[in-house]
Amino acid sequence: MKHLVLSLCIFSSFLSCQSNTGAKPPVTNKTDVTTLKQLFDTALTDGQCYEWLEVLSNDIGGRLSGSPEAQQAVEWGASLMKTLNFDKVWLQPVMVPHWVRGEKESAYFIANKQRYPVPTCALGGSVATPENGVTAQVIEVQSLEEAETLGEKLRGKIVFFNRPFDERLIQTFKAYGGCVDQRYKGASIVGKYGAVGVIVRSMTHSIDDTPHTGSMTYAALEADEKIPAAAISTRAANLLSEQLREHPALTYHFKQHCKTLPDAPSFNVIGEITGTRFPNRFITVGGHLDSWDLGDGAHDDGAGVVQSIEVLRLLRRIGIQPRHSIRVVLFMNEENGLRGGKKYAEEATKNGEVHVAALESDAGGFTPRGFSFDANHKNKELFMSWKPLLAPYGLHDMGPGGSGADISPLKSEHISLFGYRPDSQRYFDYHHSVNDTFDKVNKRELALGAAAMASLVYLLDSYID
Amino acid sequence: MKHLVLSLCIFSSFLSCQSNTGAKPPVTNKTDVTTLKQLFDTALTDGQCYEWLEVLSNDIGGRLSGSPEAQQAVEWGASLMKTLNFDKVWLQPVMVPHWVRGEKESAYFIANKQRYPVPTCALGGSVATPENGVTAQVIEVQSLEEAETLGEKLRGKIVFFNRPFDERLIQTFKAYGGCVDQRYKGASIVGKYGAVGVIVRSMTHSIDDTPHTGSMTYAALEADEKIPAAAISTRAANLLSEQLREHPALTYHFKQHCKTLPDAPSFNVIGEITGTRFPNRFITVGGHLDSWDLGDGAHDDGAGVVQSIEVLRLLRRIGIQPRHSIRVVLFMNEENGLRGGKKYAEEATKNGEVHVAALESDAGGFTPRGFSFDANHKNKELFMSWKPLLAPYGLHDMGPGGSGADISPLKSEHISLFGYRPDSQRYFDYHHSVNDTFDKVNKRELALGAAAMASLVYLLDSYID
Repeated sequence: MKHLVLSLCIFSSFLSCQSNTGAKPPVTNKTDVTTLKQLFDTALTDGQCYEWLEVLSNDIGGRLSGSPEAQQAVEWGASLMKTLNFDKVWLQPVMVPHWVRGEKESAYFIANKQRYPVPTCALGGSVATPENGVTAQVIEVQSLEEAETLGEKLRGKIVFFNRPFDERLIQTFKAYGGCVDQRYKGASIVGKYGAVGVIVRSMTHSIDDTPHTGSMTYAALEADEKIPAAAISTRAANLLSEQLREHPALTYHFKQHCKTLPDAPSFNVIGEITGTRFPNRFITVGGHLDSWDLGDGAHDDGAGVVQSIEVLRLLRRIGIQPRHSIRVVLFMNEENGLRGGKKYAEEATKNGEVHVAALESDAGGFTPRGFSFDANHKNKELFMSWKPLLAPYGLHDMGPGGSGADISPLKSEHISLFGYRPDSQRYFDYHHSVNDTFDKVNKRELALGAAAMASLVYLLDSYID
Repeated sequence: MKHLVLSLCIFSSFLSCQSNTGAKPPVTNKTDVTTLKQLFDTALTDGQCYEWLEVLSNDIGGRLSGSPEAQQAVEWGASLMKTLNFDKVWLQPVMVPHWVRGEKESAYFIANKQRYPVPTCALGGSVATPENGVTAQVIEVQSLEEAETLGEKLRGKIVFFNRPFDERLIQTFKAYGGCVDQRYKGASIVGKYGAVGVIVRSMTHSIDDTPHTGSMTYAALEADEKIPAAAISTRAANLLSEQLREHPALTYHFKQHCKTLPDAPSFNVIGEITGTRFPNRFITVGGHLDSWDLGDGAHDDGAGVVQSIEVLRLLRRIGIQPRHSIRVVLFMNEENGLRGGKKYAEEATKNGEVHVAALESDAGGFTPRGFSFDANHKNKELFMSWKPLLAPYGLHDMGPGGSGADISPLKSEHISLFGYRPDSQRYFDYHHSVNDTFDKVNKRELALGAAAMASLVYLLDSYID
């Protein structure tokens, strides 16, 4: 095992430098410095992931689990990895939910005889409205708790969840985390009280005319309690709220023709570079291959998919022979089921595979900020000691936190789970909407992310047994 | 004077925290923590600079020195500051260069009888071509030095400077700095050897069809040695280079009708909140009001302009009574003359004003990364001690470096000069081109920048005498 790298004071005159653990004296490992530089140089001058993403986003497009596009993405991923000459490439079968949006979603409300059109989209997993839609009065609430309190007053009503993002949170995922219960659980709460529909303010900071879809649950509701659920644009949500104050009895109408079909066969796509010393110990890097259907899934999570493939290509390109087996996994069905992530962990257990670390990129292809990790105390110190190596690349955010949905089923006391953390400010402008398209991705930002991930995987391979 | 703040370990569980100077024990100043939080909260929930930028970019648009739009921008800036009730608002007269692009720029080359159109734009300050354009053979060079070496071989030729950005540099301004001599000095070098025109590869990483303009000089050339100079798109530059290898005698044609008019009267726009303790000691924050004419100047430097005004509004909004006088200066003519910056410094000297610090935002309205500074050793330690206060807002890059062109004439041994440093990855996709438009600015990224700048100004006001 290589010596622990604690400090790197020669790399940048701009950034200050000091030991971060205090526990051990600074050591400069020139091999690590050189290797990281090689990875970044190669990603920036000879990167391929931007061109791959263009194909995945523009030629294949949105690829919801069970769709023909998801199957095309599976074939594209396997075919690409084969051309890259990884040691092994295979498909791991998994059954996935199969929900389809249908056509002609629409909504409007009428207040004081005036009709206001509302940009709307069904939430993933929702039932359809009746053929002619649902028309009812609206009750606006700010939380699941408030809805529970109203109880029977919700009968016959459309419940409007309108708690906005907390703009003050610097990390936008925290703002999302503070609101998304409305989208995910809203219908399951109000369906039991006889509400006839749910509309949710879109999960975004941006005040615009674009609805953002996402997953939802009916939890334990009976079939006849399942009510249609939709997201509406933030501008429409503001207008509706305003009009409700003046005209509490206004009527809202929406129509959607989505449905859930029987589960469909699909696949995780897996590639591997076999380790020289610990071939049966694995470091996995991945993103999810499925996406919502409205946009092209460029940031969510096309970016994570192509970056993860690029990690293995970069390591090989600069001549790294990893000690552990390094796997790239393109997980199927993160968005509405997590079946791919669960299947991968299940198969790993069944096959007695030891996973020492896993990294997921599922926060967009934006400029790198760092990594968050879920690891035991001993490894935490090790990971924090890498900060000076990563700082010259703008990777300052290294600390405990979440990792990624797809790799979370791998969690055990022996594995370290990492989440790649790019800058989060723009993510929810695009997330789950028609705006998540290839033109929103910057080539350098995407490539820097791939290099950051390759650097982490290289360090993990070097310092963990 | 308040106590020095060295450390802040309570603020974020995500980010590691330690003293950065080693010289003094950690102290937590809760007032500073609270004030910075208030500044960021206010900017994010009640910010105004995005709406201001929309007016400056979309209603006024590109505003090259001497243009009617530049005058409109002056009036807009003064009027806005008056509505914000700063203690003083005034215009500082300054004469500026007045160059106009004219209409119908065009270019193409003919190789092997095929005609290739070339996206082109005159460089700012260039002379026109003759009415029917210039047509000549092309010599491609990679540097000023290579051009000098060729000497008399350049006679009668169009010289094509084609050294690309170094993609490996993480800070994109370094890549720009490594190339821009071709654009700025190219004509002044080859004009003396009888070249008939200069074309320069656009200053951008992006391979696309957009030419990027910018300033140039003829230095000491005689009138008859001044030759027309243009930028061409990177894709056209690659194609031309490729065709030159096959067809070294191909002919290139370009036409432009730009001219330099007599200097025009214009203004710096200045607003002030007068200090309670040191009214005659100044901290200045600014950006430049002029922009190139091709886009709307949203990132360069509309962002810096509106952020600088927002700094004063935020300080006042949360009830700060600054000890020093805080000035916002909207500098005129950064792009092609720096007359505003020079005039401001000249007037400051003439009036015996003591400037203790100045901050410029002229690197785009992107997500915050930090500040670079040019200061004496004692103050360096002080500034570095603020890192833990700034880190929770993603402001990790705090260190010695450049500041800003407009404030550089203020340099003396007593002043600390700062440059606001947002993330630089996307900047040169837009810089000086038709792509620099309002839709490329993210509201939160812009607001976070304003809050970062207000935080720095607050700390400077609190800790410097």
